[in-house]
Amino acid sequence: VPGQLKSAVVGATGYAGFELARLLLRHPRLAPPLFFSRDTAERDTDLGKVFPHLSGNASHKLLPLSPEELERHQLDLLFFATPHELSREWIPKAVARGVRVVDLSGAWRLKEAAHRKIYGFDESDGCAAKLAEAAVYGLPELHRDRVHDAQLVANPGCYATSVILALAPLVRAGLVASDSGIVCDCKSGVSGAGKQPTPRTHFVEVAENLSVYSAFGHRHTGEILEQVGLDENQLTFTPHLLPIARGILSTIYLRLNKPVEPGEIEQCLRDSYSGCAWVRVFPPPQLPQIQYCARTNFCDLGFNLSPAGTRLVLVSCLDNLMKGAAGQAVQNMNVMYGWGEQEGLN
Amino acid sequence: VPGQLKSAVVGATGYAGFELARLLLRHPRLAPPLFFSRDTAERDTDLGKVFPHLSGNASHKLLPLSPEELERHQLDLLFFATPHELSREWIPKAVARGVRVVDLSGAWRLKEAAHRKIYGFDESDGCAAKLAEAAVYGLPELHRDRVHDAQLVANPGCYATSVILALAPLVRAGLVASDSGIVCDCKSGVSGAGKQPTPRTHFVEVAENLSVYSAFGHRHTGEILEQVGLDENQLTFTPHLLPIARGILSTIYLRLNKPVEPGEIEQCLRDSYSGCAWVRVFPPPQLPQIQYCARTNFCDLGFNLSPAGTRLVLVSCLDNLMKGAAGQAVQNMNVMYGWGEQEGLN
Amino acid sequence: VPGQLKSAVVGATGYAGFELARLLLRHPRLAPPLFFSRDTAERDTDLGKVFPHLSGNASHKLLPLSPEELERHQLDLLFFATPHELSREWIPKAVARGVRVVDLSGAWRLKEAAHRKIYGFDESDGCAAKLAEAAVYGLPELHRDRVHDAQLVANPGCYATSVILALAPLVRAGLVASDSGIVCDCKSGVSGAGKQPTPRTHFVEVAENLSVYSAFGHRHTGEILEQVGLDENQLTFTPHLLPIARGILSTIYLRLNKPVEPGEIEQCLRDSYSGCAWVRVFPPPQLPQIQYCARTNFCDLGFNLSPAGTRLVLVSCLDNLMKGAAGQAVQNMNVMYGWGEQEGLN
Amino acid sequence: VPGQLKSAVVGATGYAGFELARLLLRHPRLAPPLFFSRDTAERDTDLGKVFPHLSGNASHKLLPLSPEELERHQLDLLFFATPHELSREWIPKAVARGVRVVDLSGAWRLKEAAHRKIYGFDESDGCAAKLAEAAVYGLPELHRDRVHDAQLVANPGCYATSVILALAPLVRAGLVASDSGIVCDCKSGVSGAGKQPTPRTHFVEVAENLSVYSAFGHRHTGEILEQVGLDENQLTFTPHLLPIARGILSTIYLRLNKPVEPGEIEQCLRDSYSGCAWVRVFPPPQLPQIQYCARTNFCDLGFNLSPAGTRLVLVSCLDNLMKGAAGQAVQNMNVMYGWGEQEGLN
Repeated sequence: VPGQLKSAVVGATGYAGFELARLLLRHPRLAPPLFFSRDTAERDTDLGKVFPHLSGNASHKLLPLSPEELERHQLDLLFFATPHELSREWIPKAVARGVRVVDLSGAWRLKEAAHRKIYGFDESDGCAAKLAEAAVYGLPELHRDRVHDAQLVANPGCYATSVILALAPLVRAGLVASDSGIVCDCKSGVSGAGKQPTPRTHFVEVAENLSVYSAFGHRHTGEILEQVGLDENQLTFTPHLLPIARGILSTIYLRLNKPVEPGEIEQCLRDSYSGCAWVRVFPPPQLPQIQYCARTNFCDLGFNLSPAGTRLVLVSCLDNLMKGAAGQAVQNMNVMYGWGEQEGLN
Repeated sequence: VPGQLKSAVVGATGYAGFELARLLLRHPRLAPPLFFSRDTAERDTDLGKVFPHLSGNASHKLLPLSPEELERHQLDLLFFATPHELSREWIPKAVARGVRVVDLSGAWRLKEAAHRKIYGFDESDGCAAKLAEAAVYGLPELHRDRVHDAQLVANPGCYATSVILALAPLVRAGLVASDSGIVCDCKSGVSGAGKQPTPRTHFVEVAENLSVYSAFGHRHTGEILEQVGLDENQLTFTPHLLPIARGILSTIYLRLNKPVEPGEIEQCLRDSYSGCAWVRVFPPPQLPQIQYCARTNFCDLGFNLSPAGTRLVLVSCLDNLMKGAAGQAVQNMNVMYGWGEQEGLN
Repeated sequence: VPGQLKSAVVGATGYAGFELARLLLRHPRLAPPLFFSRDTAERDTDLGKVFPHLSGNASHKLLPLSPEELERHQLDLLFFATPHELSREWIPKAVARGVRVVDLSGAWRLKEAAHRKIYGFDESDGCAAKLAEAAVYGLPELHRDRVHDAQLVANPGCYATSVILALAPLVRAGLVASDSGIVCDCKSGVSGAGKQPTPRTHFVEVAENLSVYSAFGHRHTGEILEQVGLDENQLTFTPHLLPIARGILSTIYLRLNKPVEPGEIEQCLRDSYSGCAWVRVFPPPQLPQIQYCARTNFCDLGFNLSPAGTRLVLVSCLDNLMKGAAGQAVQNMNVMYGWGEQEGLN
Repeated sequence: VPGQLKSAVVGATGYAGFELARLLLRHPRLAPPLFFSRDTAERDTDLGKVFPHLSGNASHKLLPLSPEELERHQLDLLFFATPHELSREWIPKAVARGVRVVDLSGAWRLKEAAHRKIYGFDESDGCAAKLAEAAVYGLPELHRDRVHDAQLVANPGCYATSVILALAPLVRAGLVASDSGIVCDCKSGVSGAGKQPTPRTHFVEVAENLSVYSAFGHRHTGEILEQVGLDENQLTFTPHLLPIARGILSTIYLRLNKPVEPGEIEQCLRDSYSGCAWVRVFPPPQLPQIQYCARTNFCDLGFNLSPAGTRLVLVSCLDNLMKGAAGQAVQNMNVMYGWGEQEGLN
């Protein structure tokens, strides 16, 4: 159909990639999207074989990933739902051919080389570093205009989206006593850990359990610091693995520069997200819960204030596969092409 | 059998009461314990009817709760696993008759009237307030000698046990910059909310979900402040409801007065709990998980330190029905009678 | 908007009612639906207060349920997602006023008085029995034409839908040795038990557990017998409560009149449901799982055959709130008004 | 200590092996047991490293598995909690040296070569087949005397234990119309699938799901047929994977040769298991649930009878790691050495 966008997903057989496939298949603006898989064992099989959730619908063959294949289909837009190493390798080639890209990995999110270190990229030739600089951090609520014009959108991390949307408005408004230290205690469902079976994701190790991981060492920390404008010593971010399949709840603790009224906090959040379809602000004392936003593209924000008005607990919830990954990628696409931000996401 | 202690549980049909019943039934020092129920519908039925987990074993009739009944059985030791209102009403009578008591409710834990306010007790006649003063806070790791001599032991709250055991050694050692604010982000399984069915404990509302509750208003806050020696503004405690049946994980954030080495923190914790059978200190970077201590009486402590050595994340895990309730009650009994602290708990 | 249907949901604050509300709110053929609640405490509150999943969207006030209110809004179609007693009381009045009705309760599903006995209705005046006779059993795959013309559609039970769709084609084809006995071992998520908190639905009683209930006494048995054409002694139906929020898997065992090939069974199922958008037949050996159809309106069917071709295991999966309740109600509405059967359900 | 038994576990790092380790460590009759691991990466590490549940207790080094090591320690009794291939390879050597063995795998359970085919053993030299004949099927409730005298005890499969204990008494009493077909619909927690991470045991694939597997092809079928005395066409056994960590519930359907009263069934079960500490018979209408026997060595039996007294639903519950594996292994040891059958299991 003329006028319809030709898109494809690389890595459609992971959890985020499959969620993205489901969204793109029913998006009204797109020609039937293509699906690429790196896994040679999956080639020419149908996506409905890997995810019988789709079976009985039309066939969606998994195509082999190769430069020739990508070239052959004359795509307008490529989504990469791949490990960051693969994104780092393939995306410069796609960008060089003029294709627009939304990358769901952490490959292009960080501006500061110091923060990128944790990924261990080889940056010796400088090209990739330059592309990292050109990439736009795909949080439409903060960077809508730049996303619109971007060739390469770095889709934010799931934890990072949850924390930044809660924290950025208050820090920017000068309300936060950052030097007292901000605490981000974040809890995520298991789909965030990917589809690869590991001892960590074995049902018996997760059910009836809760565990902390990557304290003082999670890759999303750099994104949060860069986007909110904080230095490392001002923020502690600790992820936990919840015995649920999907959803993130972040409990964020901060001290305020001076006593405030609840209305002041609420107003600051509402003003920041007026006109943003995918952020909901809850009036206190009601707080978001994971179930309210599960399987939606909403990021839900709420808060409680200490009686003296000086200590704030912010709660931020989202679905890690939707607003934390595939949903946000579609939202970014909508912004890139000037479509309604809610299209294909309801 | 001469020399065997005559004990009873009031409220054996709740989750903590039943856990206590199971422990007492196999404790080597006790005569067969008695079980009282306030619920007239349950009278003369067998505990094994309410909890078929016990069926097939010997019969354990539920006795009606009345002053005459309590008197008649000439008990040495009474456990109250009842709502705090009932503990407040009945325990003064038992104490007046010379019976020793371990109360699992919050009725007698708090020394400061300001902290007790949250319970809304009528303290007009002063007697109960006097008894509250005489009651010993039953955390054997902190008050072993006083528990040994106590007539009334106030068994600590589950969250409070988890936080106090982690925090007290470091605060007492002068390591903690309390004025920067200590954050206690605590997560508990649903059995902590009691056996009464409510919208909050409905399976569909808990599964695939996580929620915050009682921010800036949970009853255990006062216990923590009193036992650790902090004022209200120095500590923020936020409970969360986990989609699991039992277990608590507390993630505790604090800033240190000066940069330290991990070994310093570990040594402080180990020194504090040397000789304590029921506290385990994990060497970093390993951290406790709920599954490691579930269905045991252990409180597991671990920590990670920021690279600069100034920010500390403490993790404390326990089973809310064991070390957080019934197990600790048995441990207190063991201390009260000079028995081995592990007896009946392995 | 002229041409748009005026519909309402009575009982929108239960699980099935709310699922229905969500579906109707985005159905392209409807004027904004109305929501009635019997619960006086909920009147004039917003549906988004009861289910914050909706908050931030437009307001949906809960209207009081009264004959005058129902009259005043000049409704075309009423959905009852209410207990059967209430459906039994209110629906004759609505029908008398010419309103079309889809009832999600068991009030009007059964033709034979012997089967209806289990509900304990007062049938002394004969009117209700007559309405029961006129009501159409709303399984569109079996009764599409009659649903189209019906004034009162009795939306099938969740278990019944799952069993009937699997069993009816094979029994009708004369393949099943009914006298050997058909076994329907069915497992359901907890939302099927309703939103009312009870000891049975307490998280601690369901998690880490599985239990049988209503053996030889479940209300859906009669529907299955009537629709498939069996007598009581030929079929055993046993429901189980699964530790999940939603979804049903029925494992159905039967003996065949003569040895068959797998292809024969598959063909029989495919022929029966050709042109049925909401039934998917899985080719053996692949079998449906709850996760494949969760949150969709599909009923998924699959089977395995014994090596000798004489014993058959059928597996039927659906989402109890979708194809088992609200989704099927919408599908029935689509059929009643001659719309596409998939409208508003993708 | 003189008189104490020297025992060891081969494969202590799997779920059943670790459960066994926990039981043996507190068994009053044993010298400190030894633990062997095939995994060279684990050698010389502590069992408490692999299962921090044990940390803080005494050290339990994992020993390398080799003939010399096994020889060197002069063991009386060896438990194999290993894959059946390894049991098939190592156990003949141990038996040849006169060591007594309890094998938790399926290697030695089956008497009929036709049933053993499913394991694909090489039986060309006949030695192993001879040992299979000599091995005693370790269900003490059925073969107590032979277990007492056995050198090699083949510990039954978890599903098989659950089904045989329910079915054997009724079939032996001639009550069952076997030719109408017996249906065993069995549901198990995930620990039964082993500790190796696979796509099937990934949390996201199990949670909020239920699935059938190995219909008409599960390895435990042969055990059931041999022990109960049925031929293949008389019994259909279908396993399901439950979203819980541990526990099995089997729902067993059968037709009776003539109408009976509930009391007749109950008496038959009670007579069969009088004097059996680890089988509990529930009086109808109460039925066992997984939670009642979880983490115990009980097999709980219950039943409901159709109104006409001709169709029977039996429900059998056990913990797959206890009565279904490690607990039963300890029970077998107790019988082999003439100790109380409950020792070390309470």
